[in-house]
Amino acid sequence: MRITDVKITPIAVPDVPLANTKGVHQQVFLRAILELTTDTGLTGLSETYGATRTLTGLENVASTLEGLDPYDLSDLRRRVEAALPDVGGVNGPTALADHKLVDVVYGAFEIAMLDIRGKEVGRPLYDLLGGAVRKQIRFGGYLFYKFAKQDLTFGPDIMGEVMTPDALVGQARDFSDRYGFQSWKLKGGVLDPDLEVETMLKLREAFPDHPLRIDPMGAWTVSTAKRVVTQLDGVLEYLEDPCRGMEAMAALSAQIDMPLATNLVVVEFEQIIQAVKADAIQIILSDHHYWRGATGAIQLGAMCRAAGLGVSMHSNSHLGISLAAMCHVAAATPNLTYDCDTHYPWSTKDIVTGGRPQFQDGALPVPDGPGLGVELDHGAVADLHDLYNQAMVVDRDDTDEMLKYIPDYVRKVPRW
Amino acid sequence: MRITDVKITPIAVPDVPLANTKGVHQQVFLRAILELTTDTGLTGLSETYGATRTLTGLENVASTLEGLDPYDLSDLRRRVEAALPDVGGVNGPTALADHKLVDVVYGAFEIAMLDIRGKEVGRPLYDLLGGAVRKQIRFGGYLFYKFAKQDLTFGPDIMGEVMTPDALVGQARDFSDRYGFQSWKLKGGVLDPDLEVETMLKLREAFPDHPLRIDPMGAWTVSTAKRVVTQLDGVLEYLEDPCRGMEAMAALSAQIDMPLATNLVVVEFEQIIQAVKADAIQIILSDHHYWRGATGAIQLGAMCRAAGLGVSMHSNSHLGISLAAMCHVAAATPNLTYDCDTHYPWSTKDIVTGGRPQFQDGALPVPDGPGLGVELDHGAVADLHDLYNQAMVVDRDDTDEMLKYIPDYVRKVPRW
Repeated sequence: MRITDVKITPIAVPDVPLANTKGVHQQVFLRAILELTTDTGLTGLSETYGATRTLTGLENVASTLEGLDPYDLSDLRRRVEAALPDVGGVNGPTALADHKLVDVVYGAFEIAMLDIRGKEVGRPLYDLLGGAVRKQIRFGGYLFYKFAKQDLTFGPDIMGEVMTPDALVGQARDFSDRYGFQSWKLKGGVLDPDLEVETMLKLREAFPDHPLRIDPMGAWTVSTAKRVVTQLDGVLEYLEDPCRGMEAMAALSAQIDMPLATNLVVVEFEQIIQAVKADAIQIILSDHHYWRGATGAIQLGAMCRAAGLGVSMHSNSHLGISLAAMCHVAAATPNLTYDCDTHYPWSTKDIVTGGRPQFQDGALPVPDGPGLGVELDHGAVADLHDLYNQAMVVDRDDTDEMLKYIPDYVRKVPRW
Repeated sequence: MRITDVKITPIAVPDVPLANTKGVHQQVFLRAILELTTDTGLTGLSETYGATRTLTGLENVASTLEGLDPYDLSDLRRRVEAALPDVGGVNGPTALADHKLVDVVYGAFEIAMLDIRGKEVGRPLYDLLGGAVRKQIRFGGYLFYKFAKQDLTFGPDIMGEVMTPDALVGQARDFSDRYGFQSWKLKGGVLDPDLEVETMLKLREAFPDHPLRIDPMGAWTVSTAKRVVTQLDGVLEYLEDPCRGMEAMAALSAQIDMPLATNLVVVEFEQIIQAVKADAIQIILSDHHYWRGATGAIQLGAMCRAAGLGVSMHSNSHLGISLAAMCHVAAATPNLTYDCDTHYPWSTKDIVTGGRPQFQDGALPVPDGPGLGVELDHGAVADLHDLYNQAMVVDRDDTDEMLKYIPDYVRKVPRW
């Protein structure tokens, strides 16, 4: 069985102005949809980042994949490394996180190859990862401060402006009604830390039994983070990336008992060892998109178990192929015991058939069809590819977008 | 696809009196041969330790495996843990190495399940581990001081007494002629360290380009090991388990530049982290028999890469099923860059069809048939099971056997 064709389709998906410490989500988010075809007539799907850097990387590798055996992940790795020499961070050399493009591109194709293998043998993808320890995947509600959407050219708003603690609790109530989430994560680093603390305390009051997290994406100094930890003692399940960099996280960790999670300071396997030596973090966020695919995410789980670290799951804005892959990885990662992140409710589109999956009590069943267990809605892909061409957005720049809402916005790290 | 039957056959294989710091090999070594059958008519093979403790563990688990899906490694793990609560080291609670019985029993069944999966899909086992980065597996010649065999009841001797540096070099020449090995490992801890140093220097003289290793199995104090390191500076590729325990290895490592390898102080994933923190070792020996099967061995490779550690491969006395599994694991472990250990040349029997594999320049091709790529010679298994019943050896005790050759032998740790 050999790969005979690779199709990569960039798409743009209507987004809403969700705020973070870098700025705010643009009118569309970008994804790349991959379709790999074999000489045996099978098609493997995948979904990953759609910005220029990833897209170019995917395209450069795609032209070298003819004849690849979908079982030979090592050969895929070799081809990716050969086609992408000397690359830096996927967000550019100045990016906060050094998400290596090689890992991202490898991971994208790996998912499609595992999809093919699962289809060939009539098995769900999780069975190729060691089997499912859970069939229901629990997601947490991902809460954002947000602006009211100004320009509705590419799609409607969802829930209008949410820029106060009370409005944020309202957002949670809305998500609770619609999806039944059993835990909440707030994207922080947007308002003054005192307001974000107030938000978390009001969430606690409104949802006494829901585990709560906040992720300011490194926006706080160590002393600010320490103050927040004191104010939220006993309130948070864990605190995600309060400070920027391994040193700052280690300095904070040494002064507090609250578990620290990260998807910024540990994004490479080598950094797990560094973090353990520095005692900088207690929980790592898994993500097959940049942790070397599904097999890399499984290895991450094994390494965290060995290192005594917890595992949670990270999300970027995504659609149903990524959602399915996330479910399979979560199903096959025994120590992924926290509710997964997902941006999924912040979009209304999808590119898989059968309609958008419905959360029940915040959970989704892992698809049990062969491979990923999803099929492509080619019409929907074509529509969103048209939007990609119309929107003329080819890179993500939340800071630039922020200027539409706050004309004098200046990004600062740390901000408070 | 479900497991419908599990057959476990203990066998005894004629051995020769190879010396180590514990004592000497008994007249036979013990293995367990596993045959798992599915409702689809497939059979999966495996081979592991055959002493009482492992055998009892295998049997206790076997009775709980009916209905197991060969893809569901997590379910296997659950069943093994449920059937073997509160077990200690596989060599007994006072054993030097805490090879957990759960991992050993899990690993044995996992290999058989992967064999079944490979056969179902018509793929060599390495393809289920991510693909082969090499198809020729290089083995090092495993050299032993040894006695002339006294009792030939269960089988002939191989090469008579080898108890001097010159005789050991003769053994290497013999192995070189027969198997073409391109590197040598000496099981040390047997003679006075000065004689073992002399042996290594004479090996270097006789084989100027062969990488050399010595493994005294923790027989030396830190100061003795340091003296040996000085004497063998520039001669050894690495030094394996010179001292007993993580602390001693760390103390030695801090004083020397020579890489230290181990299969004794790091036998659990958690110990990799401990060893990295203590900077105690530079190379870990992989072994699917106790590193949680083939998938565990692959995870070990990934963890070593992340931790900046090298990977080599450990061997116990074994036959052709284990040899095939070792080849598949080595093929799929990219950073297993050292020649693998194997005791295989020290036996003349096998339980696979097609005759004993022939080493070419010290290497073997990884079998490319479905699954493990080996088939069971049922007659040979029956013969060696008869020998198991005749020999009345059910546990390994090298120290007790040593009394036949050195009546006043007392095991000491460390010895020098």
